[in-house]
Amino acid sequence: MTFAEATAVQSVADDEYTVRVAEGWDIAGNANGGYLLAIMGRAITAATGRPDVVSITGHYLAPARPSTGRVAVEVVRSGGRHATASAMLELDGRPTLVALATVTDLADAVGPEQIDAAVPELPAPDDCVAFSPSGDGPGPPSFASQVEMRLHPEDASFAEGRPSGRARMRGWFRLRDGERADSLALVLATDAFPPTIFNADLPVAWTPTVELTAHVRAAAPPGWWRCAFRTRFISGGYLEADGEIWDGSGRLLAESRQLALVPRG
Amino acid sequence: MTFAEATAVQSVADDEYTVRVAEGWDIAGNANGGYLLAIMGRAITAATGRPDVVSITGHYLAPARPSTGRVAVEVVRSGGRHATASAMLELDGRPTLVALATVTDLADAVGPEQIDAAVPELPAPDDCVAFSPSGDGPGPPSFASQVEMRLHPEDASFAEGRPSGRARMRGWFRLRDGERADSLALVLATDAFPPTIFNADLPVAWTPTVELTAHVRAAAPPGWWRCAFRTRFISGGYLEADGEIWDGSGRLLAESRQLALVPRG
Repeated sequence: MTFAEATAVQSVADDEYTVRVAEGWDIAGNANGGYLLAIMGRAITAATGRPDVVSITGHYLAPARPSTGRVAVEVVRSGGRHATASAMLELDGRPTLVALATVTDLADAVGPEQIDAAVPELPAPDDCVAFSPSGDGPGPPSFASQVEMRLHPEDASFAEGRPSGRARMRGWFRLRDGERADSLALVLATDAFPPTIFNADLPVAWTPTVELTAHVRAAAPPGWWRCAFRTRFISGGYLEADGEIWDGSGRLLAESRQLALVPRG
Repeated sequence: MTFAEATAVQSVADDEYTVRVAEGWDIAGNANGGYLLAIMGRAITAATGRPDVVSITGHYLAPARPSTGRVAVEVVRSGGRHATASAMLELDGRPTLVALATVTDLADAVGPEQIDAAVPELPAPDDCVAFSPSGDGPGPPSFASQVEMRLHPEDASFAEGRPSGRARMRGWFRLRDGERADSLALVLATDAFPPTIFNADLPVAWTPTVELTAHVRAAAPPGWWRCAFRTRFISGGYLEADGEIWDGSGRLLAESRQLALVPRG
């Protein structure tokens, strides 16, 4: 199933959509958070008629099992370059994810450029480690079979039980089978990689997302995307994971940050 | 007027509050974005009975002039440690700010600790530059008279027309007159400093916030807070500003990120 099919929304009333949380986009039965947020973005872009998310935030209310659901969108502002909307996903009548997004057409995005950051270092895709659902590590997520991911060799050994000791995860991402990517595929990519905590030397396996925010900073290009996620602060029962997604030629495509729970040991 | 007074909310119906966007918390007539988001947090903590915001996102829909308004809260989940709610601020019947937050009691926050970050370097408060409304620089915001801010000397010369050339702003923050701070004062602090763009060497003076997200990572302590904001990517008509707030003894209190528009020259 393509990403476009797995995130399709069907209008059933004004600003109301039926959606399918598809089989196979889950990790141990729970739908991937970036995938769910992309569905919300799909409904919001449909309701507002703007093709690209520039900022989207989701707060995760309950685990999402594959099923048919409903997204209700409320457009709270529309005018000029941007529209803003909230959305609620209900599965089996249960509030599952609430989101807030501002959308635009990134084809119109122009402005001065000043970059104070380095492209994340990453061996070429063929010199990285394919992250596939056939591994034996934490997971293996069936979600990983839906997209192509190649991990930085330094960050991949967690799968053999040897975390690097630094809460990072770097790698390449692309959709399968040459499917054309859009800004919602960037949202997907912000939560696609194994959790950074897998490389922290802590006895924590499961960090449910409280909130995920993605900023899309450029139209999504074809090809591999260079991704880097890191966690600097594990404290007080929470951690943040900051993500950057760049294209192959060194242009920032998206930034993300999520707040996750660190369950008490 | 204290911060508590300036963010007070009065219940008028179930999950509905009258609020006052107070005079003097504005910059050239428009209320400060962190101040407005703190008002939303106040209404959400009141509606949910949880004292602390852990993650709050606001999308800014229109400039806010000082006036009386109304905040409607919708609690979408409540149970266990967290509650999640959305909120809409209307001023003169006009949607002005929409927010989404997850709240908790940070007194209950415990977990393993692993930090991979350095405390922002900053001279002592008395060796920094008081940022006050009597200056001649960009602004001067009357907002700055409501709180105490001391800027890193390297980042303060923008006010004399000499930007540092790096889009950073570092300094100390505290509430005035020994007022006791709470997690919403941390939200305020994430948007209190002059914009990072004032130190970029670009002919851009005005960068309206599209979206601001703050994570509160520890209960707010008294005293000066060590703050650092930086912008790494000015591109495509947008910029992000990332913030960190630490206490005086080197503990992270909050992280923030905002997305702002960079108007076409």
